[in-house]
Amino acid sequence: MATQKFTGVIPPVVVPDTEDHQLDVASFERSINRMIDAGVDGLFFLGSSGEVVFSTDERRRQIVAEAVRIVDHRVPVLVGIIDTETERMIEHGKVAQELGADALVATCPFYALQGMTEVEEHFRILHEELDLPIFAYDIPVCVHTKLPWKLLAKLGAEGVLAGVKDSSGDDISFRYLVQENEKNGHPMSILTGHEVVVDGAYLGGADGSVPGLANVEPEGYVRQWKAAQAGDWATVKAEQDRLNEISHIWDVTSGVQGYAGGVGAFKTAMNLMGIFDSPTMPRPVKAMTGENVEAIRKVLQDNGLL
Amino acid sequence: MATQKFTGVIPPVVVPDTEDHQLDVASFERSINRMIDAGVDGLFFLGSSGEVVFSTDERRRQIVAEAVRIVDHRVPVLVGIIDTETERMIEHGKVAQELGADALVATCPFYALQGMTEVEEHFRILHEELDLPIFAYDIPVCVHTKLPWKLLAKLGAEGVLAGVKDSSGDDISFRYLVQENEKNGHPMSILTGHEVVVDGAYLGGADGSVPGLANVEPEGYVRQWKAAQAGDWATVKAEQDRLNEISHIWDVTSGVQGYAGGVGAFKTAMNLMGIFDSPTMPRPVKAMTGENVEAIRKVLQDNGLL
Amino acid sequence: MATQKFTGVIPPVVVPDTEDHQLDVASFERSINRMIDAGVDGLFFLGSSGEVVFSTDERRRQIVAEAVRIVDHRVPVLVGIIDTETERMIEHGKVAQELGADALVATCPFYALQGMTEVEEHFRILHEELDLPIFAYDIPVCVHTKLPWKLLAKLGAEGVLAGVKDSSGDDISFRYLVQENEKNGHPMSILTGHEVVVDGAYLGGADGSVPGLANVEPEGYVRQWKAAQAGDWATVKAEQDRLNEISHIWDVTSGVQGYAGGVGAFKTAMNLMGIFDSPTMPRPVKAMTGENVEAIRKVLQDNGLL
Amino acid sequence: MATQKFTGVIPPVVVPDTEDHQLDVASFERSINRMIDAGVDGLFFLGSSGEVVFSTDERRRQIVAEAVRIVDHRVPVLVGIIDTETERMIEHGKVAQELGADALVATCPFYALQGMTEVEEHFRILHEELDLPIFAYDIPVCVHTKLPWKLLAKLGAEGVLAGVKDSSGDDISFRYLVQENEKNGHPMSILTGHEVVVDGAYLGGADGSVPGLANVEPEGYVRQWKAAQAGDWATVKAEQDRLNEISHIWDVTSGVQGYAGGVGAFKTAMNLMGIFDSPTMPRPVKAMTGENVEAIRKVLQDNGLL
Repeated sequence: MATQKFTGVIPPVVVPDTEDHQLDVASFERSINRMIDAGVDGLFFLGSSGEVVFSTDERRRQIVAEAVRIVDHRVPVLVGIIDTETERMIEHGKVAQELGADALVATCPFYALQGMTEVEEHFRILHEELDLPIFAYDIPVCVHTKLPWKLLAKLGAEGVLAGVKDSSGDDISFRYLVQENEKNGHPMSILTGHEVVVDGAYLGGADGSVPGLANVEPEGYVRQWKAAQAGDWATVKAEQDRLNEISHIWDVTSGVQGYAGGVGAFKTAMNLMGIFDSPTMPRPVKAMTGENVEAIRKVLQDNGLL
Repeated sequence: MATQKFTGVIPPVVVPDTEDHQLDVASFERSINRMIDAGVDGLFFLGSSGEVVFSTDERRRQIVAEAVRIVDHRVPVLVGIIDTETERMIEHGKVAQELGADALVATCPFYALQGMTEVEEHFRILHEELDLPIFAYDIPVCVHTKLPWKLLAKLGAEGVLAGVKDSSGDDISFRYLVQENEKNGHPMSILTGHEVVVDGAYLGGADGSVPGLANVEPEGYVRQWKAAQAGDWATVKAEQDRLNEISHIWDVTSGVQGYAGGVGAFKTAMNLMGIFDSPTMPRPVKAMTGENVEAIRKVLQDNGLL
Repeated sequence: MATQKFTGVIPPVVVPDTEDHQLDVASFERSINRMIDAGVDGLFFLGSSGEVVFSTDERRRQIVAEAVRIVDHRVPVLVGIIDTETERMIEHGKVAQELGADALVATCPFYALQGMTEVEEHFRILHEELDLPIFAYDIPVCVHTKLPWKLLAKLGAEGVLAGVKDSSGDDISFRYLVQENEKNGHPMSILTGHEVVVDGAYLGGADGSVPGLANVEPEGYVRQWKAAQAGDWATVKAEQDRLNEISHIWDVTSGVQGYAGGVGAFKTAMNLMGIFDSPTMPRPVKAMTGENVEAIRKVLQDNGLL
Repeated sequence: MATQKFTGVIPPVVVPDTEDHQLDVASFERSINRMIDAGVDGLFFLGSSGEVVFSTDERRRQIVAEAVRIVDHRVPVLVGIIDTETERMIEHGKVAQELGADALVATCPFYALQGMTEVEEHFRILHEELDLPIFAYDIPVCVHTKLPWKLLAKLGAEGVLAGVKDSSGDDISFRYLVQENEKNGHPMSILTGHEVVVDGAYLGGADGSVPGLANVEPEGYVRQWKAAQAGDWATVKAEQDRLNEISHIWDVTSGVQGYAGGVGAFKTAMNLMGIFDSPTMPRPVKAMTGENVEAIRKVLQDNGLL
């Protein structure tokens, strides 16, 4: 099945900025090549941690164009078309497919209040208007709507959706979705976006993962996926334990929260590791400084990454 | 003070669509002229009920250009620059000021999770990068962040904000903000966006209102504002009672919710009243039909609007 | 109408504790008498700020018995019967009516998840099983359910509810409820629990208020109610402005939140003013200390209460 | 370690009511014996699905007394002491320990708003005042506070908490808690309350589960736990898949929600299976009827339980 290529480890790519807030192409290339060399199965650009909502349309276009150029067909390229409503997402989708994306990832609409009738219609319109496989991006913490698993399973069975990228934090709904998708003949590729519980998601039947932490440490996630494919669950769990230790770069800091604390920790770590030339964040977010940088440095050292 | 012209009744303008989802310029002109003729003190375009998040950049540009042309300096034109993050809002703001807007209305960022440090920095950047007065749009039901009144008052006192458009549903915070703004020498114009409790907001010291319902019945709000200016509180209350009866166009329908039920009711009413040629809603939202239209028709008839 | 006696200023009575967490009867009597002498129209015991959920059944009984004894029919006594579910509230209600309460105040059930079918049934059962007028207590911040105004108005029209104590923070819903109750012949007494926006609530038609701040400064609320009765809205607003300055005892502190910051500020102020012998809070909450006490002292001094 | 006996499958026991809302002792005994015969490792009484918040103190006492009598030391008895605040929970705890409970399960306080300072103090007071092992019950959907894993791990390391019953729906936090508890020498027993994702929880290191669905089908959970102990993860997953099919008794109904839909489905199923003589629910909740009963019957038949 066509969508089955979207399986395995597909990191959401963190975007490096120069100090004057331009795309740092050299660092971008360095990071992308590092992840592909580690064996990831795909790359997801313009996700929530990929600065999609911070980027102007011109910058979005630049990020996709550079991504397609750098990846150069080595792995599939998924592109987020996240915006407030359907017509705006269609515009982003048309640009991405012109630039060579392999699949598109769309949230439900946000900001304007809507019900499930509108959410369903939204995904149907995207499927009609665009020519690439559509992944539904379930991320209620950002869009404040949970996509019901029954709706997702139905849209998958009808061919409207090619897959789901789940960042819902609702492992119960995820488990039901995977099981229903299996009963439907497995039309969708269902990926977990929660990097610290990938072991449980794989055991429950997930088709892959979209771990932000793989920007920092891709090899562990690649080994974990291979172990899961081999049924070696003790290794799947052990890799998770190790990766989770690294993930504490998120919670050893203080005074930063949300995007500043999460993506900020990734950028700080990747700067310390020499992958990114700068930890610069998009306005209005500030990069971490001082003790927060030192706390992250210590986590990296304790886990052998520095 | 310069910002004091932004007082009184400033309706958020509902946008008419043709059946093929284009801007219906003739209906737009009819509605705008009707509100100006009724005596409103300003008009707010591209607000939440003005399809801002549904409109592509090209359509946003068209709406502002037509608005400026039609209004033709008869009243001030406020323009919403709502988008997910700072850089995108700056782009919208530059377009609006080129096209002739008198003031800009900006929410805090949404989708990406942020703290108050980022929210404050966001408004400071907008003030630096743009040349028009900035109103903060406090609408947590859409952006999921409540703007603290102490922050708003501080930004007003420093000249960063020219005013606040409050759709927070938090009348306590609103009351504190108005009182603190008064103590600061009244630098900001503070407007309530809650059309069914304007009487209380005026008594508490609000500088004006942004009532969506004024698209349907502007005269009542104009009379109410004049009564408030005259200290005739019994009339302020009586006008509110009457307007609230009309506002039940929102809750006599069934099976529609959120944007479909709210702005949908406005469009249906304005179509029935001959102001809009069509009740068409932006995709993926459907216009009301059948019994819902009849229920709204009855409210309009009972209140002498048909 | 029988329930019309429950109008005007009805403070929710804050409960003084001795340092070893017993009811401080002397302070309790001092505070109650002070409010009655100031002219309040009723007193509400065992409300959210009256330690209802902190008190064992034995202590609840003691509070009601002392309250009835001290008030001695000078004003009506309303008693909260707040608990997780219907049967438990019935038990509290039977005790309160035996002890001489004049009306009972009940939230909807909380903790167990329920829909509106259960909420409606709950109030109907309370009405059937108990012999006193029942007020619905709408306080979603504590019970996490908003009571819909249409349901409240219906239960009022049917005689199930004698009134509503609104602490919902939803002034729109409150405005609709008051207006619908008026259309129904005014069967219910509708009281606002939001002490900083009483002016707007009175203008909109509220039958009275339940201001926690009246424990600290009852005279202002009494004067405000009399001004509202006389249609002197400028005075209603001016009294509110003054009371709101005092209310900043809530937000000049730091490091305390929720109950500790709210009721804690009341107790600290009343202790400083000599009304309460101790600012002791119920376990597990700690009384304010140090700079927080000094900050509250300053607000009281600035407003002439010390 | 003493608390290590609280591992494995520990169902939260659903309570049968007679049609006149009394405890149905015969059905209670039948269900308890059925679960013990199936091999469960403990039983948890007066949990959220055990009618704790619906029961008067007298009924709570009756449930615990009958439970202790029926269980008769065959497995450990855990008892919920859930109530709004600390002093009330202490009272319930003293009763439970007098009646012979083996451990107590306490939520953080609810209804009154509190911060983490108060939550931590609450558990410390319970530990000081009571003589049995204390489990923290993390159930934000009911108490609207999420217990932070760092706090739980700290209280476990200090001996304040003997374990955690996690119904938080936050598998990320759960994973971190289990891992931190392991690093602390495994002082706590950490149990998942989410019956449809037990497989992932076991792989991640959970010490057991508290599955409501085990009231309907205990054998599957017992087999699953044994498979997990043996490292047979394929069986752990396969048992989960089968149990999840049965769990659809929750979502094949319509018009019921929350407690009525969840515990209501359990009681309906157990009534159809002859375990409970009646599906009666506690007031104000109604038992399921008509098509909802038939829908549940079909699920049971399809899965071989009828």
